[in-house]
Amino acid sequence: MEEQIKEIEKAFLTYVKKMSAYQEALALIYWDLRTGAPKKGIGQRSQVIGLLSSEVFQMSTSEEMAAFIANLSGAENELSDITKKTLQECKKEYDRNKKIPREEYEEYVVLQSQAESVWEEAREKSDFSLFQPYLEKLVAFNKKFIDYWGYEGNKYNTLLDMYEPGVTVEMLDQVFGQLREEIVALVKEIAASPNKPDTSFLHKPFPKEQQKAFSLKVIEKLGYDFQAGRLDDTVHPFAIGINPGDVRITTRYDENDWRMAVFGTIHECGHALYEQHISKELIGTPLCTGTSMGIHESQSLFYENILGRDYSFWKHHYDSLKAHAAGQFDHVSLEEFYRGINESKASLIRIEADELTYPLHIIIRYEIEKGLFNDEIEVKDLPKIWNDKYEEYLGIRPTTDKEGVLQDVHWAGGSFGYFPSYALGYMYAMQFKNKMLEDLPHYDELLENGDYGPIREWLSNHIHQYGKLKKPLEILESVTGEGLNASHLITYLKDKFQKIYRL
Amino acid sequence: MEEQIKEIEKAFLTYVKKMSAYQEALALIYWDLRTGAPKKGIGQRSQVIGLLSSEVFQMSTSEEMAAFIANLSGAENELSDITKKTLQECKKEYDRNKKIPREEYEEYVVLQSQAESVWEEAREKSDFSLFQPYLEKLVAFNKKFIDYWGYEGNKYNTLLDMYEPGVTVEMLDQVFGQLREEIVALVKEIAASPNKPDTSFLHKPFPKEQQKAFSLKVIEKLGYDFQAGRLDDTVHPFAIGINPGDVRITTRYDENDWRMAVFGTIHECGHALYEQHISKELIGTPLCTGTSMGIHESQSLFYENILGRDYSFWKHHYDSLKAHAAGQFDHVSLEEFYRGINESKASLIRIEADELTYPLHIIIRYEIEKGLFNDEIEVKDLPKIWNDKYEEYLGIRPTTDKEGVLQDVHWAGGSFGYFPSYALGYMYAMQFKNKMLEDLPHYDELLENGDYGPIREWLSNHIHQYGKLKKPLEILESVTGEGLNASHLITYLKDKFQKIYRL
Repeated sequence: MEEQIKEIEKAFLTYVKKMSAYQEALALIYWDLRTGAPKKGIGQRSQVIGLLSSEVFQMSTSEEMAAFIANLSGAENELSDITKKTLQECKKEYDRNKKIPREEYEEYVVLQSQAESVWEEAREKSDFSLFQPYLEKLVAFNKKFIDYWGYEGNKYNTLLDMYEPGVTVEMLDQVFGQLREEIVALVKEIAASPNKPDTSFLHKPFPKEQQKAFSLKVIEKLGYDFQAGRLDDTVHPFAIGINPGDVRITTRYDENDWRMAVFGTIHECGHALYEQHISKELIGTPLCTGTSMGIHESQSLFYENILGRDYSFWKHHYDSLKAHAAGQFDHVSLEEFYRGINESKASLIRIEADELTYPLHIIIRYEIEKGLFNDEIEVKDLPKIWNDKYEEYLGIRPTTDKEGVLQDVHWAGGSFGYFPSYALGYMYAMQFKNKMLEDLPHYDELLENGDYGPIREWLSNHIHQYGKLKKPLEILESVTGEGLNASHLITYLKDKFQKIYRL
Repeated sequence: MEEQIKEIEKAFLTYVKKMSAYQEALALIYWDLRTGAPKKGIGQRSQVIGLLSSEVFQMSTSEEMAAFIANLSGAENELSDITKKTLQECKKEYDRNKKIPREEYEEYVVLQSQAESVWEEAREKSDFSLFQPYLEKLVAFNKKFIDYWGYEGNKYNTLLDMYEPGVTVEMLDQVFGQLREEIVALVKEIAASPNKPDTSFLHKPFPKEQQKAFSLKVIEKLGYDFQAGRLDDTVHPFAIGINPGDVRITTRYDENDWRMAVFGTIHECGHALYEQHISKELIGTPLCTGTSMGIHESQSLFYENILGRDYSFWKHHYDSLKAHAAGQFDHVSLEEFYRGINESKASLIRIEADELTYPLHIIIRYEIEKGLFNDEIEVKDLPKIWNDKYEEYLGIRPTTDKEGVLQDVHWAGGSFGYFPSYALGYMYAMQFKNKMLEDLPHYDELLENGDYGPIREWLSNHIHQYGKLKKPLEILESVTGEGLNASHLITYLKDKFQKIYRL
């Protein structure tokens, strides 16, 4: 019997390896499409994507997969830990995919792609009414899917679970409530403060090639392995783990705002360091990736903001930045520079928001999504609800749909439950950082010396190596000894911004 | 019945489309590996290549494929021309792959990869004896394969057929014999001529970026569609048709010899123009590629040499070259320049050979391969036979194996029958060119004006659009009205080089 299980385990891992191989090919195609694939080949390339994706989908819902799940589920004790977790991932995927009737899913896929192009037009024209019927259908489909999939406690939990397994509305209501209250108060204080940082020097021309040279220098120091990755240009920056030895990042440049490229590159580098340090043992399984959107974001936000906008970090890099720039920082002290890059100001567009106000953008979306899926909000009322919330939390009110409810593509793609990950990332990051400080009491010194090895190793040992072997809250708890806790982030933001704005 | 055939035809085309999709993914992976894939990801990427290739192989030899062949072969009259030719390709592939016992093929694949690395070492050490046992085994395997596959007339024909379907030893003996005799005589005359061109100005420094700018300008003029392709750097330049809307080329730069990049890029552009102009109707079938190595090479060699080293071509481009260069041509007349870039000199290394002597390098390899597969030559005698032939035909004798029999990778990879394509390409190219002159009597004027549209269209209409719908000799005959004929090339070479060397 045990012999037989070993045989099935082996066949299962071979099967899963083939699925991973197809996904690796898809990842490379995706990277290529976004970094320079010739325009005229894209139509045919989409066909290739369709065929490969549908092959993976069929494999994930095949009778063969059903048999693996049936035969191995009873024998979990005889399986290696990797096989066990791989089996769980496959089973989750199988259940999700099998429960939706095929025709409904196909209809939904068509709707998604229509909705995205309608959204583009609606956003261009700043007219929510064009997008409204599509969004209504998307929400209705997802409500039906929740019925098929089932839910515990709150319907929205089922959607959250897709991006942040284990995180629930109950938890988010608590931490987001606390966060909202504290940040809203702090944002008001800052708005009233007479001690605003000077930021004029941030917008002086900074040649692209020099920005690139500086960014490359920084991420090389941070430990991004160029033998296992590369940096390219794109319109929408991203990091992609094709395999742990091939984790690519992209960035974009604005000659009048160097922060976009430099902090953007550090952000993607944070994602990439995660993927580059996943244990090689997980290659060829669905575990060979970051465990959740939130934990992934905790790594990119840690590097971009917590580390990358730290005073000690710039104590080390400021001279180098000056040497790469065109003279605009020559008469700017490190102190002034530090305050400038940490300016906080309520704004309407999420992706342009600063470290302090960003979580409010997320909380607004969270509250709206939760309302939608609990039948407390109707799609047709979204523009007003959106604008009211911005006014209430951030003190500014969008005057158009374009700078309001139509700004993000997520909903058009059917991604509900994704947004909270961004704010969770901040919270995780500060919880990890405070634990890291216990183990690395000379953290500030490390930053001042540009000695990131110990930090990278700490993150790799505690988080990165596990890939999806551990669930997000499992990692959080095993590393910090506690569950989700907003107070770490709150204390950090208060300390930092009270000092900067001399409150 | 007819209804039923239509159903099977549809299923067959869907099946073939899937194979093509996998091959497209493989082509992109191949391009990526050679243009900048991070080193540490390559091991895992090879696994992906292995899995995708073996999937394609299995599909090409599956019972499903056997059924398609059986069910459709009798009903060819009811099939579209594309389906019919696709079926023929699939059948040829099926027969080839099925006739070799699986274990033997697997053994051969392992041998190939061992042989390549041993060849690298042997070449490095310039020691044929290291490589000899591997080459012996490779030849033995291919002899066995020929037995499995069968042959007509000459055993070597079966190998030729892999790269140049329809071309036989009988044809090659005739044309290569004629070519050899005439070129050998001409090379001797040239060696004795006192009127050697000056080439000193060719080796002055020419900055890489400027070479690139000039090359891009030239191929854009030639009609390379950058919306359907891109140019990257590599160690070994190549062109790859991923699909007709995505045909990429690569090149390499030598700052002390600009000819490598400029003529290399034009060469790859010739291949790319072929692939970019294949009829879109062939997408998703095995017909969507150049019909043979030889016809492909006829396009690259036409652009690189026949057009690209023509006096009229440079009449148009010389000023631009001067403007891109660093002053080295300022006092060189167009006449001197033209003679310089057309210097002919017997040399030992094939890939560095000039237009006139190049075919001799190929003929030597052809004669040796033919001898090997007809049991007239033994592997152990290759270094001596090789060197003797170089001395006889080119008047120079290699003093090491590295610059002799070990210079090419082809045999180490098991590619026998491939070399003749290169020389066939020259012959085809001149046969096409002479026909083109009938249709475009103002050819020289077109070149002088940089007006390549009519030439490109002519090639596209007569050759490119068909992809593999027509076999190489079918295309040759339908376009020129004759079969293989070396005299076009001979006349061209004589005219050109007698003028240059004032014989």
